[in-house]
Amino acid sequence: MAQSAQGHTHKFINQIAAGETVNDVYVVREPILRSTSRGDLYIAMFLCDRTGQLNGRMWQASEVVYKSLPKPGFVHVQGRSELYQNNLQIVVNTIAAIDPSKVNVENYLARTTKDCNQMFKEVQEIVGAIRHPQLAALCQAFLADKDLMKCFCSAPGGMKMHHDCIGGLLEHTHSMLRVAKAILPLYPQIQPDLVLAGVFLHDMGKTEELSYDMAFSYTDSGQLIGHISKSLLMIHRKAEALRAAGTKIAPDLLDTIGHIILSHHGEYEFGSPKLPATAEAFMVYYIDDLDAKMDQVTSAIDAETSESNWTAWQNALQTRLYRKRLAPQG
Amino acid sequence: MAQSAQGHTHKFINQIAAGETVNDVYVVREPILRSTSRGDLYIAMFLCDRTGQLNGRMWQASEVVYKSLPKPGFVHVQGRSELYQNNLQIVVNTIAAIDPSKVNVENYLARTTKDCNQMFKEVQEIVGAIRHPQLAALCQAFLADKDLMKCFCSAPGGMKMHHDCIGGLLEHTHSMLRVAKAILPLYPQIQPDLVLAGVFLHDMGKTEELSYDMAFSYTDSGQLIGHISKSLLMIHRKAEALRAAGTKIAPDLLDTIGHIILSHHGEYEFGSPKLPATAEAFMVYYIDDLDAKMDQVTSAIDAETSESNWTAWQNALQTRLYRKRLAPQG
Amino acid sequence: MAQSAQGHTHKFINQIAAGETVNDVYVVREPILRSTSRGDLYIAMFLCDRTGQLNGRMWQASEVVYKSLPKPGFVHVQGRSELYQNNLQIVVNTIAAIDPSKVNVENYLARTTKDCNQMFKEVQEIVGAIRHPQLAALCQAFLADKDLMKCFCSAPGGMKMHHDCIGGLLEHTHSMLRVAKAILPLYPQIQPDLVLAGVFLHDMGKTEELSYDMAFSYTDSGQLIGHISKSLLMIHRKAEALRAAGTKIAPDLLDTIGHIILSHHGEYEFGSPKLPATAEAFMVYYIDDLDAKMDQVTSAIDAETSESNWTAWQNALQTRLYRKRLAPQG
Amino acid sequence: MAQSAQGHTHKFINQIAAGETVNDVYVVREPILRSTSRGDLYIAMFLCDRTGQLNGRMWQASEVVYKSLPKPGFVHVQGRSELYQNNLQIVVNTIAAIDPSKVNVENYLARTTKDCNQMFKEVQEIVGAIRHPQLAALCQAFLADKDLMKCFCSAPGGMKMHHDCIGGLLEHTHSMLRVAKAILPLYPQIQPDLVLAGVFLHDMGKTEELSYDMAFSYTDSGQLIGHISKSLLMIHRKAEALRAAGTKIAPDLLDTIGHIILSHHGEYEFGSPKLPATAEAFMVYYIDDLDAKMDQVTSAIDAETSESNWTAWQNALQTRLYRKRLAPQG
Amino acid sequence: MAQSAQGHTHKFINQIAAGETVNDVYVVREPILRSTSRGDLYIAMFLCDRTGQLNGRMWQASEVVYKSLPKPGFVHVQGRSELYQNNLQIVVNTIAAIDPSKVNVENYLARTTKDCNQMFKEVQEIVGAIRHPQLAALCQAFLADKDLMKCFCSAPGGMKMHHDCIGGLLEHTHSMLRVAKAILPLYPQIQPDLVLAGVFLHDMGKTEELSYDMAFSYTDSGQLIGHISKSLLMIHRKAEALRAAGTKIAPDLLDTIGHIILSHHGEYEFGSPKLPATAEAFMVYYIDDLDAKMDQVTSAIDAETSESNWTAWQNALQTRLYRKRLAPQG
Amino acid sequence: MAQSAQGHTHKFINQIAAGETVNDVYVVREPILRSTSRGDLYIAMFLCDRTGQLNGRMWQASEVVYKSLPKPGFVHVQGRSELYQNNLQIVVNTIAAIDPSKVNVENYLARTTKDCNQMFKEVQEIVGAIRHPQLAALCQAFLADKDLMKCFCSAPGGMKMHHDCIGGLLEHTHSMLRVAKAILPLYPQIQPDLVLAGVFLHDMGKTEELSYDMAFSYTDSGQLIGHISKSLLMIHRKAEALRAAGTKIAPDLLDTIGHIILSHHGEYEFGSPKLPATAEAFMVYYIDDLDAKMDQVTSAIDAETSESNWTAWQNALQTRLYRKRLAPQG
Repeated sequence: MAQSAQGHTHKFINQIAAGETVNDVYVVREPILRSTSRGDLYIAMFLCDRTGQLNGRMWQASEVVYKSLPKPGFVHVQGRSELYQNNLQIVVNTIAAIDPSKVNVENYLARTTKDCNQMFKEVQEIVGAIRHPQLAALCQAFLADKDLMKCFCSAPGGMKMHHDCIGGLLEHTHSMLRVAKAILPLYPQIQPDLVLAGVFLHDMGKTEELSYDMAFSYTDSGQLIGHISKSLLMIHRKAEALRAAGTKIAPDLLDTIGHIILSHHGEYEFGSPKLPATAEAFMVYYIDDLDAKMDQVTSAIDAETSESNWTAWQNALQTRLYRKRLAPQG
Repeated sequence: MAQSAQGHTHKFINQIAAGETVNDVYVVREPILRSTSRGDLYIAMFLCDRTGQLNGRMWQASEVVYKSLPKPGFVHVQGRSELYQNNLQIVVNTIAAIDPSKVNVENYLARTTKDCNQMFKEVQEIVGAIRHPQLAALCQAFLADKDLMKCFCSAPGGMKMHHDCIGGLLEHTHSMLRVAKAILPLYPQIQPDLVLAGVFLHDMGKTEELSYDMAFSYTDSGQLIGHISKSLLMIHRKAEALRAAGTKIAPDLLDTIGHIILSHHGEYEFGSPKLPATAEAFMVYYIDDLDAKMDQVTSAIDAETSESNWTAWQNALQTRLYRKRLAPQG
Repeated sequence: MAQSAQGHTHKFINQIAAGETVNDVYVVREPILRSTSRGDLYIAMFLCDRTGQLNGRMWQASEVVYKSLPKPGFVHVQGRSELYQNNLQIVVNTIAAIDPSKVNVENYLARTTKDCNQMFKEVQEIVGAIRHPQLAALCQAFLADKDLMKCFCSAPGGMKMHHDCIGGLLEHTHSMLRVAKAILPLYPQIQPDLVLAGVFLHDMGKTEELSYDMAFSYTDSGQLIGHISKSLLMIHRKAEALRAAGTKIAPDLLDTIGHIILSHHGEYEFGSPKLPATAEAFMVYYIDDLDAKMDQVTSAIDAETSESNWTAWQNALQTRLYRKRLAPQG
Repeated sequence: MAQSAQGHTHKFINQIAAGETVNDVYVVREPILRSTSRGDLYIAMFLCDRTGQLNGRMWQASEVVYKSLPKPGFVHVQGRSELYQNNLQIVVNTIAAIDPSKVNVENYLARTTKDCNQMFKEVQEIVGAIRHPQLAALCQAFLADKDLMKCFCSAPGGMKMHHDCIGGLLEHTHSMLRVAKAILPLYPQIQPDLVLAGVFLHDMGKTEELSYDMAFSYTDSGQLIGHISKSLLMIHRKAEALRAAGTKIAPDLLDTIGHIILSHHGEYEFGSPKLPATAEAFMVYYIDDLDAKMDQVTSAIDAETSESNWTAWQNALQTRLYRKRLAPQG
Repeated sequence: MAQSAQGHTHKFINQIAAGETVNDVYVVREPILRSTSRGDLYIAMFLCDRTGQLNGRMWQASEVVYKSLPKPGFVHVQGRSELYQNNLQIVVNTIAAIDPSKVNVENYLARTTKDCNQMFKEVQEIVGAIRHPQLAALCQAFLADKDLMKCFCSAPGGMKMHHDCIGGLLEHTHSMLRVAKAILPLYPQIQPDLVLAGVFLHDMGKTEELSYDMAFSYTDSGQLIGHISKSLLMIHRKAEALRAAGTKIAPDLLDTIGHIILSHHGEYEFGSPKLPATAEAFMVYYIDDLDAKMDQVTSAIDAETSESNWTAWQNALQTRLYRKRLAPQG
Repeated sequence: MAQSAQGHTHKFINQIAAGETVNDVYVVREPILRSTSRGDLYIAMFLCDRTGQLNGRMWQASEVVYKSLPKPGFVHVQGRSELYQNNLQIVVNTIAAIDPSKVNVENYLARTTKDCNQMFKEVQEIVGAIRHPQLAALCQAFLADKDLMKCFCSAPGGMKMHHDCIGGLLEHTHSMLRVAKAILPLYPQIQPDLVLAGVFLHDMGKTEELSYDMAFSYTDSGQLIGHISKSLLMIHRKAEALRAAGTKIAPDLLDTIGHIILSHHGEYEFGSPKLPATAEAFMVYYIDDLDAKMDQVTSAIDAETSESNWTAWQNALQTRLYRKRLAPQG
């Protein structure tokens, strides 16, 4: 259970057993008003939090109640859990929309287990070490944008493949920056400032692509334009603002950093409109792919609840994953 | 032969026969200073115009002459054509760089055979018929940008696949607008203003992607960023300028037109970072593909000089093309 | 509800509420004779019309009744609708096969909303404008084949991707002919008669590939041979009949029109045994693809019943579709 | 050297050494009339037979001679071989077109090394063992078509991948029939008559797809329609002729055999408009692929002239081939 | 029903009707201990044999019973079948794990219908005819390995695509050897001993890759390494053992047979780390593919229980299969 | 020029100018004995070292000289360089095979610029830090194999894509180990010993796959089996030797490390018979790919000799590479 900001302890969906009283806030999704064979109205719905979802049924419902429900949104539910045809469902007695500002959103959205303040501080330090004047100015313009940085620290890193949690974008960027810092000394031909700036900015558009107030989803704009193009637009807007403020960013520098962003998915089929064509673009692409896959693989291994040596089939990886660790003596 | 601006008639490369005096301006490419087995210096080079290229050899050359040559660039050449091992080459007596502003560039770059003024006028008319206020404002901002429109009327439509000539971008856009105008009445569900604006703007970034002063090539910026992303940046810059001037372009309208641009190659493997997701994006994609292929196919058929019923193998189409037309009576 | 030819009004499946008397003709599919745990026989079945299907249950059934049922086919059903585990089902009291000739098939198969007579008249006009004598003779031989033209006006344009309705083949061909007529003047190098004949005949084999008496399905012959090869066989049969009647169709004309048919899917992976190798074949391919996608996209947008800006995921298009239209003022 | 029908011995291209008198019949290809730097006309050409080709040069040529040459065709050449820049070429003194009927075509086109009469006899025997009345009738209609069978015994099996020689179609079909006969007893569920008829007819359209009078090439019709569709048209023509003569071939039998033909390339990307959907179609596809690859692989191994254990890179197989055989004792 | 070794007749899952007493051994899978809404514990499980599976429910269960169950494993079940919501399920009264050695495993795993002794004898004969001394020694080392040959005669040929039954590996290898023996005389350039040894050994690693005591599954080692690499390791182990015993296998012979094994899937995408590069490797690849597909296609046709001319969609073949046989007279 | 072991200074191919005396050792390739048009014998050949190759011609040659030449091999050449048709060639007066042991092979094969002793020492240190007893034993068995380690320090890392130089395998493995050591602390879930051992052993089979005495090429065995399968065989041989010596390597440990080797190309199409299925296998795959691409990209950039901002087209990367570095001030 989770201690909420209001001092209340949220009962998670995956902790509800049959025959219990339910009195808590959940996200309601896809409520539908139906009539029984006797003509009585009832509402079918899903009730969810970050641990799962259950069917809900409110018998003796009315159109007034139905219309009052957010679709989707937070609701306070009073009722009781029961087994119906061997599936658990919640029979709802009362249901009422609740002000989202009063809700501890972490109960409803998975959140990184890492310390966001600490991670952001390290991001600032690593990016702060960039020495090239214009690259440094460009990155500082982002770091100085308080509203954007707040989103940067909250946004998920993805919808479901990897880092799909509140703070996931920060966690992913932070981890990539640490990898970059660790391996850059091993490849002295590479321009480190370009790699660090590229890593910092490569997914910045995800702050606009994804929405994450009650659940992870794409914004309309995100779905039409995508985070790659949005990131490119963002650095051009920041460069324009810098120019207006007297700091000119050279066009070829902007193209070089823009190219890293456009090519960081590495292949056309993954939505990159350009293939990597600089050594730095290749490095950012590989660090991104490595860090994403490490998260995806270790998360899938951690999430496996069976006692099998293997996880379930991972469609994105086209394999099951072997999770048995080496015996200490072999 | 072509009457130049200077009243001089250019002798085209494909008109030179063996044993002729040469005294004209060509583009020199890849000049190399070499020494013969006797130790004498000579310069090997290619001499080109829009009709082809020949080997050039300047015997008794010096490093001073070599260094004075543009690489590549326009040069005035005096010399003589001769057959060497059955290939025509030009033996150069004198060679000197020439001011590009004194050159009639049309002799060196293929040019659309259509009337550019007439085409641009029709583009203005068709785009001028857009009635949606913000879309109209956005398009008019482009039409009012004199420098850009000059480039729009000169730029090629591509490097080599289709419309690869001066004025090709205009020719392609003009043709697509006429197709759109012809078929839009047949698909009443489609929003015509979006399609017309999308067609007008879809390749605008090619004005920055390609250079075409002496030959067709990619700019550094074009190769790093690509015309698709450049077109997107351009409409955002124009929208920002309109906003600064008091005309707000709604964000979702900008996303909708931006989506048409980002998806107009239709598939990831052709460099579109987004797949078409609106009816209008599909229509622009299909009109673009149709018009490009019609130009590519009819150009290849026209270019075939043999008497065969078939063109040479067209690698991009994975076929040879059958060019025999129907006999009038069957 | 739909007024049938017999003056009766059909109650559509998607209009049935719980607790209603049912007394109408439906298509029965997949009836199965089962026994309950008490050993009583009952029949499980689906009852369908063009708006959907419901489970049907006939308790106290007998093997005689079961054997009398068409599998599938039209049946007259008397019974009652009820909610069972929140799903509507029909409890059948009596069920009896019915003569298909007495059924208004339009209630059971979706039908184009366009006027078939009008469309066929326009097809005749556009095809009638073909001036090349042999192409005109070939097309007229098809137009004069009354039985075939009846099928041509009834057949669906496809199983599920686009124009999947009675009259869909006609609607698709008609729309393509109008597009061809609209854009042919813009591409003067193209031989218009070949394009018009190619469009008219390209899918003619669908009249044999698909069956559409009670539901859309493939014929055995259609599944083994396919409409592309069937269309080719049909033009050869017609040419042979013309030859026997004294009108010779030149072999290379037949190959040229045959090639358009064989290549009109544009790529091997879509079942074309030949890639387009004439300008006319490319044009037919593009018009076909454009018209099919326009129908597919606008149908998916129209069919979306939620209030979302986006349709459900469209697997064939690998995207969801954005359906929000421009606000009048932007 | 090859003893010709005329009692003359042809000197093959690959037997000509430098400094020899040349006085023989070759195929001339791509003759071009050019002028030297002194303005004298000469003809450049290729002179070929089945063993290779050499450059030919006729100095002091005239437009009359040039126009008299077949392009391509058989010519009698008198001249002399010489080394020019280390390449052998033929200096032509006189050249004259020659009546193809007087030429032993085997000198100019590779020919199967197997006995065609013997192979065709075995084909007749194996096909003659088909017992199903209609399948037997259909196959006998082909065997009884003398003109077609003459082509069937002469046509190549392909342009260059496998069995690319006169008689190659017969050799390939004969070998496949023998494989089918050998393995059919091992797969008792398969209908042997269908497999044997399918093998016999699967490539019959190659008799129309390929021309092979002086060199192997595609006919216009072959390139537009392809041998798969041509084979289908041929069995329908034969079935129609049988029907006219009183022997009806059942439509579903015709579809079943037609399906084998349409699917025998096994995959869409290899030009099959249908994928195999019967056990017999799968068997014909596999026997075809096996026999073609065996010929392709063993031919490439035989053709290797170096002493290497490996052949040159085989692009169609994406590998070099290892040709070292097992030592007798390991 | 199947007469077991213990004289008892097993009642197969697909023979159980509603309302019957159940008293037999089945495989229990995925037992779960749950509580009803009243708090009573029950066990949900699947009960299976080779003919299918049913839901099982044991009400009034205890944690002791739950813990005593194998997961999965053989259990003796007493209870009764009943219809629940039209699905048959087994209500379990008593359930107890049973010693697998007392179970007739054939009731639980599909088994080849062919005579294994007879097949193995023929394998010995065909492989025994290999005359090359070292290849013969290598194959005999496998035939002499009694434990391995026992596995070879029991292992399935695959998980689900083809020969997925006890004895399937033997059946597949036996059938391939017979095909090889039948066609080798038709391809005299091929080294028959290499093909026969290659066929015999190509899938030997499946004895280690697959487990098949109660159900077919992959071993951990099989999933990590795969049968292709395992087969290669096995021939190297046998060669090392022969060498230790005084019989040296030449390295290039081992590479040649190893190459056949590594390349027998024919394409990288099917898990072959090498493409076929010898004529013999191509032949083994084609025979393997032919025999696997013949089994897959005929099994799918045999398994179809409907009266349709077509099987259900076969995803691995991307088609439905046509199963109607020729009418005797056409 | 390079000071050889014999105190002689090798004149490199790319240092030879026209008109110079040649008296040095080169690799002769593809010598061919030909006759001139006058009937005189001459030998055409290529003469090469690590910097390139030139045509060689020995006039007045004899069959005796021709037969004495290695094909290919080291030869001492005396002669003279000359320009022939603007290409440099070497006219050979005398040519004689030379004992390879007397040749400084570094003149003929590119060699890593890094210090091999230092790199191998660091490899020993990093691998020496593996703590898991069996993994450590397995790796030490490799490090203790002097002959193998000598090969490991000399072998190239590839044929042409990356690290294609003497010492390239060591350089690549060393660099990967350093990357692994740098990033392993950032991914605490990963088992570091497995990654380090996997990196050390992943390409060990290249010591057998490639030959590199005079030029880089594949061994027969390497081409038939490949380095992936060879590496697997090597660890099994070492494990067997350890077992014989009393140190048992657990089968699942061997499978886990074997799996890393089999899957380290990451995708089937790159010759991996297994896809990565453990977190450690993913990490080795990504480090391998990153390090290989960094070498490939920076080598291509370094090798570019033009003054262009772009390298030539890189076919393996499907792009040209942008090599302009950031201006210090932007």
